[in-house]
Amino acid sequence: MADVHAERRDRLRGRCSAAGLDAALVTRPANLRWLTGSAEPRALLLTRDAALVDAAVPTPVAEPDGGLSPVPVPPGADPAVVLAAHRTGGALGVEEHDLTVTRHRAVVAAAGAGQVRDLGLAVEQLRTVKDEGEIGFLRIAGEIADQALGELLESIMVGRTERHLAMELERRMIDHGADGSAFPVRVGAGDHSGRPDHVPGDRRVEDGEFLTVALGACYRGYRAAVTRTFVIGLSPADWQAELHRQVFAAQRAAREALAVGSGCDAADLAARKVLDAAGIEPQRAREHGAGEGVGGGVGLEIGEEPHLGPQELGKLDNRVPVTVGVGVCIPGRGGVRIEDTLVVRPSVDGGPELLTITTKELLAL
Amino acid sequence: MADVHAERRDRLRGRCSAAGLDAALVTRPANLRWLTGSAEPRALLLTRDAALVDAAVPTPVAEPDGGLSPVPVPPGADPAVVLAAHRTGGALGVEEHDLTVTRHRAVVAAAGAGQVRDLGLAVEQLRTVKDEGEIGFLRIAGEIADQALGELLESIMVGRTERHLAMELERRMIDHGADGSAFPVRVGAGDHSGRPDHVPGDRRVEDGEFLTVALGACYRGYRAAVTRTFVIGLSPADWQAELHRQVFAAQRAAREALAVGSGCDAADLAARKVLDAAGIEPQRAREHGAGEGVGGGVGLEIGEEPHLGPQELGKLDNRVPVTVGVGVCIPGRGGVRIEDTLVVRPSVDGGPELLTITTKELLAL
Repeated sequence: MADVHAERRDRLRGRCSAAGLDAALVTRPANLRWLTGSAEPRALLLTRDAALVDAAVPTPVAEPDGGLSPVPVPPGADPAVVLAAHRTGGALGVEEHDLTVTRHRAVVAAAGAGQVRDLGLAVEQLRTVKDEGEIGFLRIAGEIADQALGELLESIMVGRTERHLAMELERRMIDHGADGSAFPVRVGAGDHSGRPDHVPGDRRVEDGEFLTVALGACYRGYRAAVTRTFVIGLSPADWQAELHRQVFAAQRAAREALAVGSGCDAADLAARKVLDAAGIEPQRAREHGAGEGVGGGVGLEIGEEPHLGPQELGKLDNRVPVTVGVGVCIPGRGGVRIEDTLVVRPSVDGGPELLTITTKELLAL
Repeated sequence: MADVHAERRDRLRGRCSAAGLDAALVTRPANLRWLTGSAEPRALLLTRDAALVDAAVPTPVAEPDGGLSPVPVPPGADPAVVLAAHRTGGALGVEEHDLTVTRHRAVVAAAGAGQVRDLGLAVEQLRTVKDEGEIGFLRIAGEIADQALGELLESIMVGRTERHLAMELERRMIDHGADGSAFPVRVGAGDHSGRPDHVPGDRRVEDGEFLTVALGACYRGYRAAVTRTFVIGLSPADWQAELHRQVFAAQRAAREALAVGSGCDAADLAARKVLDAAGIEPQRAREHGAGEGVGGGVGLEIGEEPHLGPQELGKLDNRVPVTVGVGVCIPGRGGVRIEDTLVVRPSVDGGPELLTITTKELLAL
């Protein structure tokens, strides 16, 4: 992977030159991992001819490439400040959306006032379109989440608590090779079902209720998410079947709105149109950091660029993985939430690639 | 708990007045929870006569008190920025150690330039000395970690991976009533043992090796940590028994150096003295955020104030809970790490109160 990360650093160097920056100080963890291939570095100083990382690192997660020069950082010292002092002059770009005011002040003091500027979201923007290697990791992450969910569906649900079902899913994902859970697994039973951000508690699964399960696997740092809603018992009630049908239709419409060159607002508008026709107000996908909308980009983080919200002005590119989730919750009764992870692909390649293939039909468990 | 949190907010108001601040904007999660009793608010604006929190909250974790006035925050908006615009004039203190440069800029724009100053660690300092209610939660957190560890010791270890032992401990802590793990459980076998920051992997526990287990429970938001090292097999080798004896002696010396009014450097110096006499360089407690040293304060976070490092100038107060951990790792062979959570108490009350009572003898499992 060494070549890949060195090439990414060169692309960032190009961005820096274009912005009149002589060096970049990267501190955001996901950006560091994308640029180094390792979860270890806490800071990276990228100059025209060098890439310095802090040397005080824990157990390796992935093999960093050979192009990185380690710099010793004393215990308790801020790696960003130590690396900033190593710069060779000129304008230094820092991640103002990651550095706290306090850390930024120390970096400026170390780098020299007037020399420090905002790198902005340069690395995040480079990360938005994935290479096939990254998509391969996301595909495996989706498979792992599907496997864990499939196994859970074969077990007895009634009487178990949301929290225990969530823990079992996390354990099964790790059994299937995940680094860990992409985010805390969310399990909502009864009136907790259908919510996008429910924290699993001691509520037990009961017969005749909805059960919503949202999980995601992290594989080699890449995160895919899937959400499904089931009904417990022999068969769903009419209101349950009807609500599920409407949410499924809205989420399908959102998925089908994903196309190369289409607007980032298209998926949300498509889902909303279906739900509005049914007189329903959708839950929002806030828990994925996407703000109002049906989802957002995924990769080393959940909720990367782009955001799939109604006010988004950008357009979708090829090889952009996103989550698309729609939920409806009826206070006191519960609801349905359905979410997939997909990769935007051109129609000549068959359109969006679905990474989470667990059935979306309303299973009675 | 309402009175407790309202009283804490009044204490912060006092700090603000003394610092010439008319209002405080709190954004650091642990500080928010300490001031509101809830994990929900993402921002708190504390004025002389009001306490405003953002209203867009997920499922309740704890019951917030009645003194809080909810302010609606649009999806995607920054609660800190929305609340900053609600201030009634005068100087506003913000947490510059928590706000990123980007968020701070938006807060300043909303609050009015020249009006925003640094609140500093005012809330963290108020949190350092715990009330007996908080210590009660920490005591339960310690008991939960002890229970989970005790149960693990009764099971077969050989052949299981570090990762699965870690997962089992997390599950058992939740079974015993924990909100969750206070930090990712660390299990290190063989040459991974004794490290303060080892990430559990696929290495399997083998006969004759050291096994280091570091876990912590989170109860009502309060976190206690315990680390123990065992030997797998019938009996430890001489080098293992000797190394364990030295680390145990050093950690005991550090614990015994905890006293009301004694220096925050005393525990580290006491441990170092024992290890230096044995010609050993201790591992540092970096993984708890304590920088170089044997540990630091615990409460709503691991690694709060104070830090128990060799350069610390402060003094220990009554009712300050801390972790005290010492570890030694021999490259290629592994090592021993022992850590407890204790509460600083006056000698008339029997000295430091040990919250993690799992035996520290070298058990052969």
